[in-house]
Order: sequence, then structure tokens, then C-alpha cells
Amino acid sequence: MSHPAAQPTISSVENCSITGTVEALGDTWSILVIRELFYGVRRFNDMQTELGISRSVLTDRLARLIRLDVVRTEPYQETGDRMRKQYRLTPKGMALLHVVIALMEWGDEFLNERRGGVTLHDRETGDPIRLELRTAAGKRVEAKEIEIRLREDCRIPGRAG
Amino acid sequence: MSHPAAQPTISSVENCSITGTVEALGDTWSILVIRELFYGVRRFNDMQTELGISRSVLTDRLARLIRLDVVRTEPYQETGDRMRKQYRLTPKGMALLHVVIALMEWGDEFLNERRGGVTLHDRETGDPIRLELRTAAGKRVEAKEIEIRLREDCRIPGRAG
Repeated sequence: MSHPAAQPTISSVENCSITGTVEALGDTWSILVIRELFYGVRRFNDMQTELGISRSVLTDRLARLIRLDVVRTEPYQETGDRMRKQYRLTPKGMALLHVVIALMEWGDEFLNERRGGVTLHDRETGDPIRLELRTAAGKRVEAKEIEIRLREDCRIPGRAG
Repeated sequence: MSHPAAQPTISSVENCSITGTVEALGDTWSILVIRELFYGVRRFNDMQTELGISRSVLTDRLARLIRLDVVRTEPYQETGDRMRKQYRLTPKGMALLHVVIALMEWGDEFLNERRGGVTLHDRETGDPIRLELRTAAGKRVEAKEIEIRLREDCRIPGRAG
């Protein structure tokens, strides 16, 4: 039997994936660049025009995202033009889709009076889509039905109760 | 018929909910405070201990989140002790759950070798839960099946094709 204060808490043992992601992504410009790539904008000049960002800041953020393996480059060539490079999301970058959509859904709801400039739809049925929490069996789970568990093997040695 | 470049693009008309959310949340400390509140930590001293954060930074971030209506205070009193205040997420703050879980899922997958310190489960069945994209009818939609649409009434006057 040990004092409750000696128990490891969730926060103290988590090698925090949440803040790790925030810090990996960096700043608002990086999120904007990722957003452009999800929208299908692939060329440096198009991104620069869309975002109203300086060439040096865009160069810097793209380089950072390439180092993180979130973005990759790919050559392209238009007829009669020289070879250029364009930017694509890697699988690791594509996996940020839920982060981008979660940010958008909250902003639509609370910052833009329940409507943003963009809506997402199922290409097949045209129905709007949203993020939901589900079990692998497909059961939908609401916030109040969530249980947060600490991994057994993550308990701090010598502190486990 | 107008030149393609004259069409409004998705990026140019979006009063961007994505970056709005990032900027509203502020910094990594604010995300950490929100995380603590989701974990059920409600008292100033407990948050300070968990996060290893200075009193002044924690005071500042809590005040900012209260101004944003993401966090609220609530009085509490333990037997024989004076009245104190504790912190709770408002409905607007609870709505950040998907943002927090999306950040965690990506970090678990790509920063922590597919395992974080914490797992989320359905309280009733114990099954692990994940974020998914679904239509209102419950159809699961993958990234490649998403169609991004610009709201009709968001087209820039005089630029619509």
C-alpha cells in the first residue's frame, strides 16, 4: 500500500504524443502548407500565391516538413518547359488528415459560426463526412463513454502501486 | 468562360478554420493544459506538478483559455479547508477532444513507434477506440474517397466562373 501521490499519473508517464505532434508540426505556416497539399496544391509558386507567404518562409517550412518525412518532392515537366519539382505529402503526411480535419471542424463550429469555406463529402454518395470515435467493431463512442488507460509497461519503475 | 486562374480556389476563399483553431489554441503549453483537463486534473497545484510548468506560465495559459471560453472555473471545498477554485473544460473545450486525440494518434504512430503511454477505450466494452471519417448514415470514408467542396455562397464576388 502506498500513498496516492506515489502512484504514477497518466500525465507523468506519457512520452506525450500530443505535444510531440504539436512540436513536430512547428507553427501555423507549417499547418497551412500541409493544408495546401491536402487541397492538391503542389507547386511552390502556387502555394506562395495562395498563402501570401514569403519565398524564404515557404522554402524554410517545406525543408522542415521534408526533413520530418511529411513532405516529399517529385519532378514534373510541362511540354516545352524545363524539369521542375513539385511537392507531395508522404504517407506520414497523409496521416495528418485527421489532425487537419479536427482543427477545421472545431474552427467551423466555434470560430466561424458553424460554417467554414470548405465542406468535406464522400465522393461516392456526396454525403457530408465528419470525424467520429469508433471501436474496431464500429460502435460509436461519445466523449463521456471514454476510458483512459495507462499502458501497463509504461509504469515508472519503483513507483508502481 | 473565364481563364482558370480567375476561378476562386479553395484556399483563397476559406476564412481558414484550420489556422484559426491553431492560433486560438496558442502554444504547446495551452494544449498541455487542455490535455490535463481531459485527463481529469482540475486543480492548479496538480496541473503545475504534472506539467512541471511555472506558476506564472500556468496562470497565463489558464486565463487565456478562460477568455476563449474553453475553460471555466468552479469553486470547491474540502472538509475543514477554505474555499478554492478548480478548472473544468466548457462545452467548447470538450469539443477539442477530436483535436487532442488526432494529435495523439499521429504522435503514437509516427513519433513513439506505434505506442504512446495512454490508450483510449470504450468504457462499456473495453474495446480500443479510434477516430474515423464517417457519413451521417455511418459509412466509413477513407482519405482517397473524400471530395473537398467550396461553399457556393463563399465564392468571391465578381470572380465566380
